Amino acid sequence: MPAGEFRYPSSPPPETEDDEGWVWNQIKEEARCDAESEPALASYLYSTILSHSSLERSLSFHLGNKLCSSTLLSTLLYDLFLNAFSTDPSLRSAAVADLRAARVRDPACVSFSHCLLNYKGFLACQAHRVAHKLWNQSRRPLALALHSRISDVFAVDIHPAARIGKGILFDHATGVVVGETAVIGNNVSILHHVTLGGTGKAGGDRHPKIGDGVLIGAGATILGNVRIGEGAKIGAGSVVLINVPPRTTAVGNPARLVGGKEKPAKHE
Amino acid sequence: MPAGEFRYPSSPPPETEDDEGWVWNQIKEEARCDAESEPALASYLYSTILSHSSLERSLSFHLGNKLCSSTLLSTLLYDLFLNAFSTDPSLRSAAVADLRAARVRDPACVSFSHCLLNYKGFLACQAHRVAHKLWNQSRRPLALALHSRISDVFAVDIHPAARIGKGILFDHATGVVVGETAVIGNNVSILHHVTLGGTGKAGGDRHPKIGDGVLIGAGATILGNVRIGEGAKIGAGSVVLINVPPRTTAVGNPARLVGGKEKPAKHE
Amino acid sequence: MPAGEFRYPSSPPPETEDDEGWVWNQIKEEARCDAESEPALASYLYSTILSHSSLERSLSFHLGNKLCSSTLLSTLLYDLFLNAFSTDPSLRSAAVADLRAARVRDPACVSFSHCLLNYKGFLACQAHRVAHKLWNQSRRPLALALHSRISDVFAVDIHPAARIGKGILFDHATGVVVGETAVIGNNVSILHHVTLGGTGKAGGDRHPKIGDGVLIGAGATILGNVRIGEGAKIGAGSVVLINVPPRTTAVGNPARLVGGKEKPAKHE
Repeated sequence: MPAGEFRYPSSPPPETEDDEGWVWNQIKEEARCDAESEPALASYLYSTILSHSSLERSLSFHLGNKLCSSTLLSTLLYDLFLNAFSTDPSLRSAAVADLRAARVRDPACVSFSHCLLNYKGFLACQAHRVAHKLWNQSRRPLALALHSRISDVFAVDIHPAARIGKGILFDHATGVVVGETAVIGNNVSILHHVTLGGTGKAGGDRHPKIGDGVLIGAGATILGNVRIGEGAKIGAGSVVLINVPPRTTAVGNPARLVGGKEKPAKHE
Repeated sequence: MPAGEFRYPSSPPPETEDDEGWVWNQIKEEARCDAESEPALASYLYSTILSHSSLERSLSFHLGNKLCSSTLLSTLLYDLFLNAFSTDPSLRSAAVADLRAARVRDPACVSFSHCLLNYKGFLACQAHRVAHKLWNQSRRPLALALHSRISDVFAVDIHPAARIGKGILFDHATGVVVGETAVIGNNVSILHHVTLGGTGKAGGDRHPKIGDGVLIGAGATILGNVRIGEGAKIGAGSVVLINVPPRTTAVGNPARLVGGKEKPAKHE
Repeated sequence: MPAGEFRYPSSPPPETEDDEGWVWNQIKEEARCDAESEPALASYLYSTILSHSSLERSLSFHLGNKLCSSTLLSTLLYDLFLNAFSTDPSLRSAAVADLRAARVRDPACVSFSHCLLNYKGFLACQAHRVAHKLWNQSRRPLALALHSRISDVFAVDIHPAARIGKGILFDHATGVVVGETAVIGNNVSILHHVTLGGTGKAGGDRHPKIGDGVLIGAGATILGNVRIGEGAKIGAGSVVLINVPPRTTAVGNPARLVGGKEKPAKHE
């Protein structure tokens, strides 16, 4: 189907001064429109989006519902998330940047509310950011309990110590594994089944460092404390054990640079 | 253990005129037998199979239970599934063809009821068909909500717009990703971790087209609007970016045709 | 972060005569410490660990909670697990050996209780051992129902007939698939997305046999009734269709032995 058939604008408008407010208004507008056209979803959309006064409340409610269990109650998780999002504006702006990333970079993403409600990669990433905050506050048992629920519910396994920038798209997201000392820059796109892992040979700082604007294809496995330069592209199914220079492409198992190590082909 | 040890017939009988009725009777017979031998399962088998008057009711109840959440109630989902299965005979015959596919092609599938109750690939595929119907009826927010639940619960991510034939075996199924414009023919077998994805370079019609009778091995990644001809085989772990002619085999990363592009070895 | 920052001992003490009792005491001590420092977890830790009189009761409660559904009640599962763990000391000693394996081999595992509570690979493996026992007692429908729940909840798909030794680390674990006739020795480490599968060409005994002390990297696919010798290492992303001699390394797609088939490089 041509993308234009759908009723939402085909690309989001540029960022405004109050970007969070603008995106939240957009989400509520979309939810109202969907609730009207689909009565079967009206109650779900009301409880998850329309009854809330802000993006942080809606997101906290939705994450609490998704991640709760009979022993980790949704109310406890709601309070935990809301407290984190309310007191840390960087968590909110990262969430908004991630919503924009999905909307701009994923042709299958039809609206902000679609991403907020349905993208397990988006939800896992927001919950991870809260787990990471708890980890840095030395509330590690709670950070690890949250990590475990994210891995059970979304099949996305990001160690709470891993550092992740903003404007991140975890597309499809099932099976993603990100190790304890991994670092991911801004505006990175990571497909499903991607591993940022260790080689098993070293302790300490043992996981990949991913530069800004990198694209990592489905099923790629990047192992060890290697550096993937900004704007680099990693082919689907690659096994990467080497540094990849900025704006170059690595493919294959084991991965080699396209154009060779001496003269890698740069793009853009 | 030799397959013959088990108490169900080792292969299903040929299709009959009322195939759906025959398979449903078989399922009830198996469930009765299991409930008698295993009291711990009696109540589960009664509520999921034996209390229902038809395959469509049993399947709708089971899917509703598996996919419901605190905000998407099982009763809503049950009504949704039952309405779709009751009014669309092609959904029912596809389900029966899928049950037969598992029974015939998977040596570990011991009975129809085993597949109906336990195969996440079978259940995800039936739920997808309902999501696809909703998508075509322009009930897209509901189709996407269902898609999201299928991805959360089964770790099987099939875009509701993707078109899938009948007689499909999604074996193990964890991690399968099928993109928006992918098309899968009839009698196709797809193992776990298989991706039918885009290359990220194009919008519009950007996903693979899989012919009848194709077998795709575990972890294979097929990207772009390429055509996999009928009866072709794709090796486990392959990364396929090219068309594959009918009845040929492709293996490796990047995948090459066995026998070469000029003279690919045909099988059967 | 340096591992030494954390408050638990950085490596577990040697095995004692009453290893199970020692580990259980350690777990309770860790849980008490965490409950005190993190009131948000106190009730969870009390109900899951501190209120129980033994490791087998705590583990049975936790597995019952994780794997239950609206049709397979947690009380039924709790009784099932507790009965198996209480009457079969080998299940308990295997659980203790697995806890030690995670603690020793995974640098990100900070405590025994962290593994018991949060490692989906550990929990899936303990539940599998109970499913395997049921399978051998000819309670196959129940074994398969349990198998299905493990696959849904943890995205770990181990056929109940598969035989697995002790001291096993399933690290991250998402997407692991182990076929019906696979055998895994003792002290094996298996990363996420690993498949021990069939080639689809044969029935009967058709899955890999993994020797003691083998390490299988992330995303490796081992297919067919091949033998991976003791202490062998299988590289991440490999596709292995051949026997691998003891203490040798196989890498690539298709996998080759490092050093060649005639003179493979042995390690250790």
